[in-house]
Amino acid sequence: MSVKAVALYTFLSENKEEISIQENEELTILDENSLDGWYLGENSRGERGLFPKTYVEIVRTRSNSNVTDCSISPEGSLGNDSPYFSSTPNTSGQINDEDYYDDWDDWDDGSTVVDDGDHIRTPGANGYAHQTPTSNNPNVHYRAKSVSGPDSMSGSRKGSMVGRNLNRFSSFVRSGVEAFVLGDVPMMAKIAESYTIEMGPLGPKWKENPNPFICSIEDPTKQTKFKGIKTYISYRVTPSHTGRPVYRRYKHFDWLYNRLLNKFTVISVPHLPEKQATGRFEEDFIEKRKRRLILWMNHMTSHPVLSQYEGFEHFLMCADDKQWKLGKRRAEKDEMVGAHFMLTLQIPNEHQDLQDVEERVDNFKTFAKKMDDSVMQLTNVASELVRKHLGGFRKEFQRLGNAFQSISQAFMLDPPHRSDGLNNAISHTGRTYENIGELFAEQPKYDLFQMLDKLSLYQGLLANFPDIIHLQKGAFAKVKESQRMSDEGKMDQGEADGIRKRCRTVGFALQAEMSHFHERREVDFKDMMQAYLKEQIAFYQRVVQQLERTLRMYDSL
Amino acid sequence: MSVKAVALYTFLSENKEEISIQENEELTILDENSLDGWYLGENSRGERGLFPKTYVEIVRTRSNSNVTDCSISPEGSLGNDSPYFSSTPNTSGQINDEDYYDDWDDWDDGSTVVDDGDHIRTPGANGYAHQTPTSNNPNVHYRAKSVSGPDSMSGSRKGSMVGRNLNRFSSFVRSGVEAFVLGDVPMMAKIAESYTIEMGPLGPKWKENPNPFICSIEDPTKQTKFKGIKTYISYRVTPSHTGRPVYRRYKHFDWLYNRLLNKFTVISVPHLPEKQATGRFEEDFIEKRKRRLILWMNHMTSHPVLSQYEGFEHFLMCADDKQWKLGKRRAEKDEMVGAHFMLTLQIPNEHQDLQDVEERVDNFKTFAKKMDDSVMQLTNVASELVRKHLGGFRKEFQRLGNAFQSISQAFMLDPPHRSDGLNNAISHTGRTYENIGELFAEQPKYDLFQMLDKLSLYQGLLANFPDIIHLQKGAFAKVKESQRMSDEGKMDQGEADGIRKRCRTVGFALQAEMSHFHERREVDFKDMMQAYLKEQIAFYQRVVQQLERTLRMYDSL
Repeated sequence: MSVKAVALYTFLSENKEEISIQENEELTILDENSLDGWYLGENSRGERGLFPKTYVEIVRTRSNSNVTDCSISPEGSLGNDSPYFSSTPNTSGQINDEDYYDDWDDWDDGSTVVDDGDHIRTPGANGYAHQTPTSNNPNVHYRAKSVSGPDSMSGSRKGSMVGRNLNRFSSFVRSGVEAFVLGDVPMMAKIAESYTIEMGPLGPKWKENPNPFICSIEDPTKQTKFKGIKTYISYRVTPSHTGRPVYRRYKHFDWLYNRLLNKFTVISVPHLPEKQATGRFEEDFIEKRKRRLILWMNHMTSHPVLSQYEGFEHFLMCADDKQWKLGKRRAEKDEMVGAHFMLTLQIPNEHQDLQDVEERVDNFKTFAKKMDDSVMQLTNVASELVRKHLGGFRKEFQRLGNAFQSISQAFMLDPPHRSDGLNNAISHTGRTYENIGELFAEQPKYDLFQMLDKLSLYQGLLANFPDIIHLQKGAFAKVKESQRMSDEGKMDQGEADGIRKRCRTVGFALQAEMSHFHERREVDFKDMMQAYLKEQIAFYQRVVQQLERTLRMYDSL
Repeated sequence: MSVKAVALYTFLSENKEEISIQENEELTILDENSLDGWYLGENSRGERGLFPKTYVEIVRTRSNSNVTDCSISPEGSLGNDSPYFSSTPNTSGQINDEDYYDDWDDWDDGSTVVDDGDHIRTPGANGYAHQTPTSNNPNVHYRAKSVSGPDSMSGSRKGSMVGRNLNRFSSFVRSGVEAFVLGDVPMMAKIAESYTIEMGPLGPKWKENPNPFICSIEDPTKQTKFKGIKTYISYRVTPSHTGRPVYRRYKHFDWLYNRLLNKFTVISVPHLPEKQATGRFEEDFIEKRKRRLILWMNHMTSHPVLSQYEGFEHFLMCADDKQWKLGKRRAEKDEMVGAHFMLTLQIPNEHQDLQDVEERVDNFKTFAKKMDDSVMQLTNVASELVRKHLGGFRKEFQRLGNAFQSISQAFMLDPPHRSDGLNNAISHTGRTYENIGELFAEQPKYDLFQMLDKLSLYQGLLANFPDIIHLQKGAFAKVKESQRMSDEGKMDQGEADGIRKRCRTVGFALQAEMSHFHERREVDFKDMMQAYLKEQIAFYQRVVQQLERTLRMYDSL
């Protein structure tokens, strides 16, 4: 039963079971039952294989125009143990919304349960309905959509003369920051949350979380349910302020991640470790995901705003199924997201010249671009070095070891002149170089992998900044436009002042976020470099020790 | 003026200026004036380029049938400063023998002086006159020819019933050992030389040189003569027993080498370091040749027979031009070469069962074959490792260094958050890895080159053994044949006993040589492995030190 689809994003295959697809490429889905978050299909070049479900949209002609973005209001249970999952697994199509929402993201789990119905492309009057993938896509950096859709935007201020962006896909518009700056977001009667920005020695910064904590992630364990139909990995997550472990799956992280994206405008939300179609239960992959979840968690707990988010607290503390569902629904119904989140910010009274802010941001932009490039460069070099360690380096040393062994074997062949001591020493030297080859092959586990983990975190954080910077640029443009209009008498000064004031909030928030990024960067890169050098030293010392022990065998000859 | 020629040996081109030629291939010499020991010519595949002069014979029709093997009786002066060399350099053809002999080997020297007339192929009644190249050819392992040619062989014992080999090119025949075993070599009235074989704990061995010495080779210096027309490298050679330096060129070594080949049947004469067409004056090549001449010399002085050779003594001590010529001529007129050399051997009285000797030799043959293979294997691995050190390893570390530098450059771009200390440390780490890349690139100079030098010496020594072993096999076959004939009454027992006795001499000599080979092998390989490990340890320690210094920069941050 093949179905047509179109690629939303470019995806590069990383395993032989996968195929690459290009943005806008027409695809044929050969099996609509997604295999664990992946479709089996064919691309326009006739290659067959797997690609991620969330990277494509199925093209249908059925007239269901009110498909809801699942990243905004999915509902579901913690355990996925609703009666729907015990029903026939292979039923395709005809599954109601509740079915889908209950299995709110099975990307990561070895599910054979039907999972259909998301990303149905619905041609309408305005072209395509906007879709956000349910899972993070490391290649495409979208910002969370605001709840203020076209309807709420065309609200109270319809008469305002300050133009709105026509590009509904600009992050400035989507994030709701445009609406916020223009004053379209009404002040709420009571705001429970509040995040403060202070002036630090290097400029605005987020006020520290008054109750800082850290959180460990340990002991990834394979679990099964539905009599073995579903297999998944569960991690023990222990926040320091409670000391009580909770158990979470990748999909819980993913749910939280999507909440964060949705809520936190102007904050660079760390990307989750990437997905992988095959080998998900292999030890190396599980280890790698654990290491990267730990880094993700460290960034979360380090962040004064993210660490105080109620949904995060719920994720870290809730150990009860029923409570989990309630808290989950509460988080999904949170109104202080996107544009409204901007209302929760308390900014300092200090005057900042908007021109200065613009310049600060431009500097940061230049820096972030260069850092992104160099992080990519180092990632490429380190990845290649891993490949060399596992391949070339190991091979060379093993070949040398074999050659020495071969020499010592030759020396055994003329018995009266065997000189066993020398032969043993040469043979041992051969084994030593074989071991050194193995040391080379194992070394990336101790240094390069950790470096790549951290670089991957930073690639994600840096990839968020262009959109965040765009918010500030958009706000700044609105200030200039409103000032001009006020000067020309087309807008009253009060309204223009309001726009300028709200633009200040955006600027302070961005600067606080830049400052947090720099602070973490210093700590993280210092740690990364020190750890790398320490492991490198230990590695070469191990090589020296092996060689010294071997050399000693010749001394007694 | 092109001339036809035929390839005597296969030569594989190693540099782009050279072309490969195959044994028996017809060639066209485009320029008969050899360029520094090389001809410019065209092979049968139409490729044009250089190939070694001594690998080919020019085909001429002139009726000069008494060309003498230049390796046996060339005459010449030490300095090549005879009046012939000051004559017009570009005269081709028509150069008399004396001309040639005076420039007895210019293979190695940057000579633009005419050097023609050797290896003239002279078709006669018996086909081609046998030629020995004046220079050693590492690809073809010929044994020195005996002075006992077909004429002396068809001498006194013409009536003997023991068959002679028909293959005139078998080393058994060419070396004169067949003639010796059959008793065709008449005892000389007085033999000045004598080399003794004793019974050692592991079997027969050469009696040590009663006056052992060593000899240094130092200070390769570029010299010119004929107003810069000739350029060559001169080495300072200082034997320990005189302490007086003499200065020698490669061609003097080559002259000595050919004397050794000619004289010493059953001894594995070490090959000289290989020739090279291009880059002969480059520092690396000169260094390499010096190192390999030193190893060659060490083997020479270690050898109880070779080290006592009068021609060697002459080479090591003579510092006077006139004396040099006299000694050179004396060496070239030495009668105790080839078959006659066998007469100089004093063997122990101990009885050795010929069957046991045969078995010993077979063991050695198996060993030598396997050692040859494993030396080749290690040579290939080590050569590839050199390539990796200079290329891949260096490149990887330099790329890592560059990537770190790039990170630190990015970190400089946002001034308020520059954190100079960290940036300096990261930048320094970048430089450290660039240095480590250079350490990798330089390391072969300290270890792998030396290993390759020694392996090359052993490749040469091992390549001699098949022919030497063949001598003993041939002698043994003669014993069996003569014993059978004696049993059948076709030969008197006295004659058969004589053959058996002379076969014992061959067997003792071969065992003494095997023993010497093993003795040196143990010393040389122990030294080689120890030196390699020591340099490897020092190398990795240098890496550790660089990394430790770099790590310390992060401690103070």
